[in-house]
Amino acid sequence: MVIVMQPNASEHELQGVVEFISGGNAEAFVSHGVNRTVIGIVGDVEQFDEHHLRSLPGVADVVRISAKYKLVSREHHPHRSTVRVGGVPIGPGTVTLIAGPCAVETFDQTLEAAKMARDAGATLLRGGAYKPRTSPYAFQGLGPLGLRILAEVREATGLPVVTEVVSPADVDTVAEHADMIQIGTRNMQNFALLQAVGAVGKPVMLKRGMNATIEEWLMAAEYIAQRGNLDIVLCERGIRTFETQTRNTLDVSAVPVAQQLSHLPVIIDPSHSGGRRDLVLPLARAAIAVGADGIIVDVHGAPDTALCDGPQALVHADIPLLATAVADFAAATGREVARVDRVAV
Amino acid sequence: MVIVMQPNASEHELQGVVEFISGGNAEAFVSHGVNRTVIGIVGDVEQFDEHHLRSLPGVADVVRISAKYKLVSREHHPHRSTVRVGGVPIGPGTVTLIAGPCAVETFDQTLEAAKMARDAGATLLRGGAYKPRTSPYAFQGLGPLGLRILAEVREATGLPVVTEVVSPADVDTVAEHADMIQIGTRNMQNFALLQAVGAVGKPVMLKRGMNATIEEWLMAAEYIAQRGNLDIVLCERGIRTFETQTRNTLDVSAVPVAQQLSHLPVIIDPSHSGGRRDLVLPLARAAIAVGADGIIVDVHGAPDTALCDGPQALVHADIPLLATAVADFAAATGREVARVDRVAV
Amino acid sequence: MVIVMQPNASEHELQGVVEFISGGNAEAFVSHGVNRTVIGIVGDVEQFDEHHLRSLPGVADVVRISAKYKLVSREHHPHRSTVRVGGVPIGPGTVTLIAGPCAVETFDQTLEAAKMARDAGATLLRGGAYKPRTSPYAFQGLGPLGLRILAEVREATGLPVVTEVVSPADVDTVAEHADMIQIGTRNMQNFALLQAVGAVGKPVMLKRGMNATIEEWLMAAEYIAQRGNLDIVLCERGIRTFETQTRNTLDVSAVPVAQQLSHLPVIIDPSHSGGRRDLVLPLARAAIAVGADGIIVDVHGAPDTALCDGPQALVHADIPLLATAVADFAAATGREVARVDRVAV
Amino acid sequence: MVIVMQPNASEHELQGVVEFISGGNAEAFVSHGVNRTVIGIVGDVEQFDEHHLRSLPGVADVVRISAKYKLVSREHHPHRSTVRVGGVPIGPGTVTLIAGPCAVETFDQTLEAAKMARDAGATLLRGGAYKPRTSPYAFQGLGPLGLRILAEVREATGLPVVTEVVSPADVDTVAEHADMIQIGTRNMQNFALLQAVGAVGKPVMLKRGMNATIEEWLMAAEYIAQRGNLDIVLCERGIRTFETQTRNTLDVSAVPVAQQLSHLPVIIDPSHSGGRRDLVLPLARAAIAVGADGIIVDVHGAPDTALCDGPQALVHADIPLLATAVADFAAATGREVARVDRVAV
Repeated sequence: MVIVMQPNASEHELQGVVEFISGGNAEAFVSHGVNRTVIGIVGDVEQFDEHHLRSLPGVADVVRISAKYKLVSREHHPHRSTVRVGGVPIGPGTVTLIAGPCAVETFDQTLEAAKMARDAGATLLRGGAYKPRTSPYAFQGLGPLGLRILAEVREATGLPVVTEVVSPADVDTVAEHADMIQIGTRNMQNFALLQAVGAVGKPVMLKRGMNATIEEWLMAAEYIAQRGNLDIVLCERGIRTFETQTRNTLDVSAVPVAQQLSHLPVIIDPSHSGGRRDLVLPLARAAIAVGADGIIVDVHGAPDTALCDGPQALVHADIPLLATAVADFAAATGREVARVDRVAV
Repeated sequence: MVIVMQPNASEHELQGVVEFISGGNAEAFVSHGVNRTVIGIVGDVEQFDEHHLRSLPGVADVVRISAKYKLVSREHHPHRSTVRVGGVPIGPGTVTLIAGPCAVETFDQTLEAAKMARDAGATLLRGGAYKPRTSPYAFQGLGPLGLRILAEVREATGLPVVTEVVSPADVDTVAEHADMIQIGTRNMQNFALLQAVGAVGKPVMLKRGMNATIEEWLMAAEYIAQRGNLDIVLCERGIRTFETQTRNTLDVSAVPVAQQLSHLPVIIDPSHSGGRRDLVLPLARAAIAVGADGIIVDVHGAPDTALCDGPQALVHADIPLLATAVADFAAATGREVARVDRVAV
Repeated sequence: MVIVMQPNASEHELQGVVEFISGGNAEAFVSHGVNRTVIGIVGDVEQFDEHHLRSLPGVADVVRISAKYKLVSREHHPHRSTVRVGGVPIGPGTVTLIAGPCAVETFDQTLEAAKMARDAGATLLRGGAYKPRTSPYAFQGLGPLGLRILAEVREATGLPVVTEVVSPADVDTVAEHADMIQIGTRNMQNFALLQAVGAVGKPVMLKRGMNATIEEWLMAAEYIAQRGNLDIVLCERGIRTFETQTRNTLDVSAVPVAQQLSHLPVIIDPSHSGGRRDLVLPLARAAIAVGADGIIVDVHGAPDTALCDGPQALVHADIPLLATAVADFAAATGREVARVDRVAV
Repeated sequence: MVIVMQPNASEHELQGVVEFISGGNAEAFVSHGVNRTVIGIVGDVEQFDEHHLRSLPGVADVVRISAKYKLVSREHHPHRSTVRVGGVPIGPGTVTLIAGPCAVETFDQTLEAAKMARDAGATLLRGGAYKPRTSPYAFQGLGPLGLRILAEVREATGLPVVTEVVSPADVDTVAEHADMIQIGTRNMQNFALLQAVGAVGKPVMLKRGMNATIEEWLMAAEYIAQRGNLDIVLCERGIRTFETQTRNTLDVSAVPVAQQLSHLPVIIDPSHSGGRRDLVLPLARAAIAVGADGIIVDVHGAPDTALCDGPQALVHADIPLLATAVADFAAATGREVARVDRVAV
């Protein structure tokens, strides 16, 4: 970190800053520049809050040199990582399709959706047993029963399961049944939950907060990584903007940006971002074209009766189109559709 | 709820909507208007998702008549509520000053801040033992030790304590020590945490999410109320905007708006919204002038060494100014500064 | 428009609304529904302000049936339009590449950039002679000299010219030299300017305001159309969000949405949205994949010395990659790269 | 400006930056710091684009020392300015009330509103003859006729007139009739318009763009000042946020912040920010309490028939409350309500 002093900063103010830094188990190197003095901090810079340093008397600005996140940063880990879920790779060189119902309602509905997913070329099954809802009166998911249904459908279809957890108390139970644990957009900064999933040995899909910057998203991933779990897949699912035609605005730029800043795989959710069935295929094409390592899509056999987000789920008629879109655009970007990697199993 | 059909909606589409509603344990009343048909829903409308209803074939729009929140709504509870914390009222007719350190660091630092708070006319002490931080490497609070320090300082000063909880697992411990439990801005939609604090018999201060609408804020309060706890105080603490001169933008309009929609007391945090010491007093004046039922302010004896948010804490020199601001503007709005209500103790 | 009255609205309030509407040269049809009365408005509904109608005593809500924009709406114009610029089509079935320097600096720099554009497969040349800058001290463009340079470069390369106008006073001069007039993002709601370009017989490229909703964008297009000019191309160029890694956030969803709401062609600017050279190609791929009718890209022979937005301009080494991206993704979406349409010339 | 090089920046990259700066009629002073080299720029730094400098090879960050705006900055003009409009001061020590109808409709309606304004203690009359509307089909104002009505009402009431201009072509006409020219929120970055009003000798009220940062607002003021007109009053009128209960979110923090950064007076518009009559008085109180140098309020004798923004206009019954609010809170902040300054007339 570099601290730039004000042109008129006094010797006393300079000493104050130096002492503050030295007091914090770090070294301050003063260099008298042209029209101002600059102080370099060496040592444990993470302990210092930029906002706070800026407030010290005489300080004009604080320049951060290295990213706040370490373990998920690409700085010391130049090669992009591949995360394997039940033998299915998510990472460079492949495009992974994850599909399934937004919420698990019944065994039959989940099985039907899983078969639709498989027909579309999906190699991972999504489905929610615990749903975070803005209204306490809305359907909150089947809970443990939902997890059992997902496990049975995995048996029946061979598709590994991705499912969400919303409370630290449920992490162990979910980890038992799931092949990958999902952290939803509203929980991206639920630090207790992040630490809990960091402590179990299952891959984690971390959705970007609908109001989070990419840096905040990577800091949230760092929370998980810091507990020893580096099998993290980042999922862009749309951010809140003033646009009302779509539920959220899909930030496709976040894919190349996050892939540059972090070695973690980055996928896109074209279903929740738009919240509209008619946008899922165009956004899925854009997602693969921009370089996403995969996409996660809602499918439902009878969306009009869905208990959650029916309007955005693809229906039977859309499945062949989804399959074609994934195959064509994976090819157009010189990649293969991800299949189960027997060696890895 | 009223569903407005499209002008060209078919009889078949109309029936589809009617059946969907009837299937959901509610009644649909069809009324053929001028250029379109309107369907009124009577019964349990909460089960229906507007987003979903809009997606049904033939539907043009969905008009919600009553608020999504019931228990915290003013609709059926016209009189504004007063919440008592250790005998101190927060509600109409009074202006309550809550003050203290952002984070509890040591007994001495907390005691010093508590005395500053008391000198400013505060009748409640704030202080954080559990801190949600965006970086896993930042100071996370003293935890249980912090709670004990707060309890000791309460002994020494007589000021009831308001402190934050960040994980459902800690709710009982915090409830034992605190007189009021705070839910922070990042946890406003941490539904598991909301339900946990709803289940303990302590007043709750619910901070508005920095990206939340007032309706989402009231829905979060409904989560707490629905578990049987109606001693909720809403706290506006600034929302995220494109402005960079302030950490967040204090939404003073939220006070009269929330007081109209809900019977719950609404206070303002002028410290975290701006994130700047020089803005605390002007914003505190505006807060009281706009009708806030109280304010919550950071104070610190030596902010330059604070482990958290030092730059925004008021210092010794500011205390008399804070006292005057609270007294003068409470008077200008025809209210009294809240004192311990012996009768209520 | 449909007005939904409050359940408890009085007969007097109902009459008040009916008279207000009837007073405004429109007819009000009252229909008594289940639990409330609904009033349909027939006639010139545009004169009524929703915000205002909502404020009338007894009104619960106002439901707009038809779009506020007429001439650019797809409602009465189901087939998507093709706009021809100097014989080059922009519309369904083709992908049009527009490229050139952000700002015209010299004849040589512009000519070099134009040749780069042509090498990439561009059939239209972009270049700014008038630049809207947030600082009055920044380079404001060459003005008339810049227009002359663009005309000379068109002579030398055969590429029709797209250039921006920032003041109504300059519209005629710009129209004389340009084949297509650009309205920049900051002027999307400069209504005097919109009306001025609507009055000249040249195609117009209307950039979306960086803070505008799609509906506001279409209303701005309506301003141009209402003056008799329907040769309008919409250009999505990124909207302002909280993300700081990119200058703006490219809203790819806006393409299918705007193409559904309006018959006008929609293109994307992948250069200004991200503001970063390294994002231009990925975003260009996403733009074509999502269905944009074209893209507009900054290119510069020596961006480090560019007077404007150098950091985002593609350089010589990028040209073959751009050509490939456009060709491959046009093919992947079943379209052709737009060429001059001799018949149309 | 200070350029911070990357730790691993090569000598060649360093030279490149130095040459780029020297090439631009400025001097580069290199100072080798601890772990990186820092370059100070002396001379005409305004010519350099930060965004561009950041993109030069080897550059880690660019730190701006002085504000981009000069003439409106408080840096070289420590004392806050007072702008006089027809002898009425707007500035420190006073609270100026400006009131009137949103739009001029008829002489009688304008006269009635002007009398209401005067009764509330207003010493300046607001009223729009040219209205920027998002729909080309909405009422656009009476134009020249409206200006004549305002002049007649000024005759009748003695209140100097503040009115908006929306096109450079109308600036001279408006300047002839108005005592103060208003630039509306949508035109804050209409640079041609800003330069036009900068060239006429009338005070200007510059409304903040609903999406603008405070710095962008001050840069817009700099456009006016740079043409020689320093009689500028800044007006905060609410910014766009995700909140839907209010039309915009009033940013009261902008008042102390802008007053610190600039010597120009800053007032608040509590009518347009909320867009709701019931919020005008609370927001007016907050505006004065936070230190605004004045407020500008919509009043209308019969708002239900108003052609523009009727729902937010105060009515006859509100006038005494407005008068009291202004008087009480001016007193509570140790200021006087602004009256015509005979000496200055």
